Amino acid sequence: MAARMKAAVFVEPGRIVLDEKPIPDVGPLDALIRITTTTICGTDVHILKGEYPVAKGLTIGHEPVGVIEKLGSAVRGYREGQRVIAGAITPSGYSNASLCGCHSQDGAGTAHGWKPIGGWKFGNTIDGCQAEYVLVPDAMANLAPVPDDLTDEQVLMCPDIMSTGFSGAESGRIRIGDTVAVFAQGPIGLCATTGARLMGATTVIAVDTVPARLEMARRLGADHVVDFRAEDPVEAIMRLTDGRGVDVAIEALGTQGTFEACLRSLRPGGTLSSLGVYSSDLRIPLGAFAAGLGDHTIVTTLCPGGKERMRRLMNVIRSGRADLRPLVTHRFKLDQIEEAYDLFAHQRDGVLKVAITP
Amino acid sequence: MAARMKAAVFVEPGRIVLDEKPIPDVGPLDALIRITTTTICGTDVHILKGEYPVAKGLTIGHEPVGVIEKLGSAVRGYREGQRVIAGAITPSGYSNASLCGCHSQDGAGTAHGWKPIGGWKFGNTIDGCQAEYVLVPDAMANLAPVPDDLTDEQVLMCPDIMSTGFSGAESGRIRIGDTVAVFAQGPIGLCATTGARLMGATTVIAVDTVPARLEMARRLGADHVVDFRAEDPVEAIMRLTDGRGVDVAIEALGTQGTFEACLRSLRPGGTLSSLGVYSSDLRIPLGAFAAGLGDHTIVTTLCPGGKERMRRLMNVIRSGRADLRPLVTHRFKLDQIEEAYDLFAHQRDGVLKVAITP
Amino acid sequence: MAARMKAAVFVEPGRIVLDEKPIPDVGPLDALIRITTTTICGTDVHILKGEYPVAKGLTIGHEPVGVIEKLGSAVRGYREGQRVIAGAITPSGYSNASLCGCHSQDGAGTAHGWKPIGGWKFGNTIDGCQAEYVLVPDAMANLAPVPDDLTDEQVLMCPDIMSTGFSGAESGRIRIGDTVAVFAQGPIGLCATTGARLMGATTVIAVDTVPARLEMARRLGADHVVDFRAEDPVEAIMRLTDGRGVDVAIEALGTQGTFEACLRSLRPGGTLSSLGVYSSDLRIPLGAFAAGLGDHTIVTTLCPGGKERMRRLMNVIRSGRADLRPLVTHRFKLDQIEEAYDLFAHQRDGVLKVAITP
Amino acid sequence: MAARMKAAVFVEPGRIVLDEKPIPDVGPLDALIRITTTTICGTDVHILKGEYPVAKGLTIGHEPVGVIEKLGSAVRGYREGQRVIAGAITPSGYSNASLCGCHSQDGAGTAHGWKPIGGWKFGNTIDGCQAEYVLVPDAMANLAPVPDDLTDEQVLMCPDIMSTGFSGAESGRIRIGDTVAVFAQGPIGLCATTGARLMGATTVIAVDTVPARLEMARRLGADHVVDFRAEDPVEAIMRLTDGRGVDVAIEALGTQGTFEACLRSLRPGGTLSSLGVYSSDLRIPLGAFAAGLGDHTIVTTLCPGGKERMRRLMNVIRSGRADLRPLVTHRFKLDQIEEAYDLFAHQRDGVLKVAITP
Repeated sequence: MAARMKAAVFVEPGRIVLDEKPIPDVGPLDALIRITTTTICGTDVHILKGEYPVAKGLTIGHEPVGVIEKLGSAVRGYREGQRVIAGAITPSGYSNASLCGCHSQDGAGTAHGWKPIGGWKFGNTIDGCQAEYVLVPDAMANLAPVPDDLTDEQVLMCPDIMSTGFSGAESGRIRIGDTVAVFAQGPIGLCATTGARLMGATTVIAVDTVPARLEMARRLGADHVVDFRAEDPVEAIMRLTDGRGVDVAIEALGTQGTFEACLRSLRPGGTLSSLGVYSSDLRIPLGAFAAGLGDHTIVTTLCPGGKERMRRLMNVIRSGRADLRPLVTHRFKLDQIEEAYDLFAHQRDGVLKVAITP
Repeated sequence: MAARMKAAVFVEPGRIVLDEKPIPDVGPLDALIRITTTTICGTDVHILKGEYPVAKGLTIGHEPVGVIEKLGSAVRGYREGQRVIAGAITPSGYSNASLCGCHSQDGAGTAHGWKPIGGWKFGNTIDGCQAEYVLVPDAMANLAPVPDDLTDEQVLMCPDIMSTGFSGAESGRIRIGDTVAVFAQGPIGLCATTGARLMGATTVIAVDTVPARLEMARRLGADHVVDFRAEDPVEAIMRLTDGRGVDVAIEALGTQGTFEACLRSLRPGGTLSSLGVYSSDLRIPLGAFAAGLGDHTIVTTLCPGGKERMRRLMNVIRSGRADLRPLVTHRFKLDQIEEAYDLFAHQRDGVLKVAITP
Repeated sequence: MAARMKAAVFVEPGRIVLDEKPIPDVGPLDALIRITTTTICGTDVHILKGEYPVAKGLTIGHEPVGVIEKLGSAVRGYREGQRVIAGAITPSGYSNASLCGCHSQDGAGTAHGWKPIGGWKFGNTIDGCQAEYVLVPDAMANLAPVPDDLTDEQVLMCPDIMSTGFSGAESGRIRIGDTVAVFAQGPIGLCATTGARLMGATTVIAVDTVPARLEMARRLGADHVVDFRAEDPVEAIMRLTDGRGVDVAIEALGTQGTFEACLRSLRPGGTLSSLGVYSSDLRIPLGAFAAGLGDHTIVTTLCPGGKERMRRLMNVIRSGRADLRPLVTHRFKLDQIEEAYDLFAHQRDGVLKVAITP
Repeated sequence: MAARMKAAVFVEPGRIVLDEKPIPDVGPLDALIRITTTTICGTDVHILKGEYPVAKGLTIGHEPVGVIEKLGSAVRGYREGQRVIAGAITPSGYSNASLCGCHSQDGAGTAHGWKPIGGWKFGNTIDGCQAEYVLVPDAMANLAPVPDDLTDEQVLMCPDIMSTGFSGAESGRIRIGDTVAVFAQGPIGLCATTGARLMGATTVIAVDTVPARLEMARRLGADHVVDFRAEDPVEAIMRLTDGRGVDVAIEALGTQGTFEACLRSLRPGGTLSSLGVYSSDLRIPLGAFAAGLGDHTIVTTLCPGGKERMRRLMNVIRSGRADLRPLVTHRFKLDQIEEAYDLFAHQRDGVLKVAITP
């Protein structure tokens, strides 16, 4: 009889429970990872609420830190016992999408090599990592060894939050001297703020309503913070930029309001870099879009994954350029994960991110 | 008393009439051009209908071919009598926007050097070229000498139609081997089709409903044509691409329907390059946008101008890579311009573009 | 006892001979391909002459067209009997270099995931395809199905010549309206000429000395040809460009003379895109380099590989945008390969490329 | 009789002297600036030594901070008395080169609109700013107002040193997580080090021999410093990068040794970003260049100029992201400029940059 493990499983909308499952078998390209630390993502809350559909019985979670327990027969270049992370997105490396650099739309095994959101597998199309063990597909493309001098919590943001947040700045092609607004300062928005500063933006304006989040934004690099309950954020941004608007606006919430405010905040020719997961159709206001004549760019980015991305992000942590440990505000055992979901989903107690340890 | 000239003037919604005006004085940076050929643009029809507001009494038209009549006192590098064109967009070259390469959002004279759609001046914020004479601002940035071996009609598409259409392909960053769909085959869409092919797209799919336009699309480089009255264009495109979708979809009409069909036609990670002038808010359907997770790019481009752009486009004509003369389907004298507007606005008699000669 | 096959093997400088070898075993990620057509590359001649060192006993050749004979146990998405090609460069897809898009410097299995020229394996670091069978590593990243309507000879240029030649244009970032010079019109230079035209260059100047090659250059898209024995090519280019110089110069020979002439042909701010394999140090003349102040770019490109690249190149062939069949001037059986090398290495009888069929 | 001013004038190799000249007349596009602070550049020392030829009698200097004394008749958007800087490079904005964004190769007034190094006018082709007054050509493209809260010395590096140094990082396309080496830590190299860090490089390795310069490099953002008299810098870099090499190497001296060491330090596929002014032919070693197969890029950049560039650089200063005041190590009156040249040319007393005030 197969050994069993604990796993946080989606049962039905409103219910993610800790259950038992067999420890999975390891295919030739896979690696089995024993999870040492993981976390809950806002997307997991969408799943919990039934807003993003996944199969019943699926293990949730896509942010693994752990140790290699077993390697697939065809996997080379790693050893069991090695500390690793994998990105939330686990591209195959060999699909047509991957070979083009569009790893997040990985279509390994599909007819034409592309699949929408196909790179996101953990806790979406295969079992995830809020469990004692997780099976990493295409291990050679995805396992990134963790330097000894970094703790689990130091690298816990790399698989998703930091990769996604930074990509908002990167896809916006921020340049030295740019003025950037970041709408919403949840964990991803805070990482976008950090990334914008890291790329050379010289005026970073962080928008949110929660004082603790605005305070954290300042700590991570924002030059100005705007509480959009206290003032109209577009007006505030126009005031702060002498009426010019920002070069890049980053959307990190996933609502019509923030999307639209981003567009209204741009200078002519500016870029809206969108990270949010939307839950309804979006509207582009004619005026904010200059009737299509404003040389605007709207770009969306799904969290970049793969081991090289993880290596680079861990370099950022190691270099001290960014310290994201303050984002981990609460810690739970895997046994307490239902409690952790409850806290996180209701954003109680100033929670930003939780660390879960089996 | 100043000499006078004929000019097509916006009187009120529904009325553009041929009137008389003084020939303008030439400022130090200007050049006065005697128009030898010009044309009417779809945008002029928007103005005629009152859908795009301009000042009463303004001379309309932004596609000039002519001869230098008089140079401003500070203009160097040209001579009177020289044959020239100027782009529809006449950037200053010295605004902050221009110096960044964002010439169409030229903010010369504004506080911060950027102005939405500020590069479009002719027939929008200053008198245009459906007249016997037009004053070209910032002449040194805008006058492009016409090679002797090119006729007026050969270069008549350069100032706007060709520059805009090609920019749809360019902003889409088309690469060798790409599959591209172009929605609507009016003059700009036809130029986008031409541009897509010119950049190395190997499957160009042209969508429209008018048989003559689809036929012209084939002639200018489309591999497939889709009549969207006969079949759903998104389905047709999916069939033609084995379900993969296109790398780049170009919108060349300015409607919700074509915008949305572009988005639905894209492969994951694809680019929607929008050229249309919209007249109402746009809606982004959640599914077609993969909820913001599809690595999509939406980019809008206002006609690139300036003399270097014009030089390059005339090179395309000279090299024989594109022959846009078939787009000129009708010819009128300036005296007949009201008749020309009537024909063009109602798209009668298979009209694509008209040539107007004073 | 293992079945045996014929293979062209490097014995020592000056000697590549047809020998017998065991048909290789198939590892889990590999595919065994039965070769139906292959060819000889200029690089193979470097190997023959001892100018590029490889291990004694290695099978030469890196341009395979064939049929899948056997798939590795972990390979999914293909079937035995399928017609395929693989690029000369066979990236793993999962190395750090590959995951960055730098597939040709693939360092699969190395400490840091990068290896100079590491993507080139066939006939360099593993047995190549001038044989009855070849083992393709990382098959899922490299096998590209050949459409039924394309013959072997139609796709024979895709694995190397066409991919390399086109990359000269692509790395030069050619834009619509550019003026481009291509130095040397061997098979790769001819493909660079084709690629330059395909990307929208409006003046393509082909340089060589062999009349038949210049004639072929014209046929494939050159606007002007320059015989550099008859006139100084830099002077000719300056004359053809009215003293301006070219936007992009492509080096396709690998000599100091052509490298230097490229640099001297550039306009200020232009790009030298280098494809040649050099055999000695290069010199950058101070004047041609504007003492380092000319905003020049020099970029080198090793043949892009991987199945997505092959798919795109076959699309170019299928679309009729380029027809490279005229490059195949001679045909041999594998049994005659020594004779084929003799002809090809001495460039006798107007040879451009030979087709070898087992 | 015209009013006269003091100016540092090139007499002959070895002699730059303080002389008297007429205050220049102001053309319609010009502005006359009363210099309040300027400095001496390494390039001026090349001129002094006769290594870079300029006309006898030319006023030297290209880094102006001052006050608008008089505006040309066609200049709009400024007022006399306004504090401004202009870049070392003063593009016209309207040449073909400028309109392409290649401002440093500005060919205003030339036949084809491009001129090698044509953007560099001050102290090269027109009188420079080591004087009481300087005439700024194409004032509307070049005058950048200085915010009141910045001192002359705070913005003194913007016109050349900071713009050039930062461009080394920018042209290298540094990305978050990159490893970068900067060869030579004179004023420009120090700014390249600063710029590399500002763009998100996480390992910045500064190479020089002077302890004070290495110390300054650390202060401005280097993670590691290498004294290349104490150890071979390429070996040191390979050690610091675990044998991988750097993503980007920046050359900031202008010698064969540093150029070559940059190339040898690169990872496969890396970029050499060259800023140095070379004084003899360069050699590219075959091995370091992987025989042309290493996917290397070599890019040179001449100091970007124009008012938008200056605005952005002043934003960097204002934001506190970079504080370059420590580079100003010595101060002189214009009357003492010969003494200043003597100190600076001999790099005595730890001089980095001198401030000169009329």
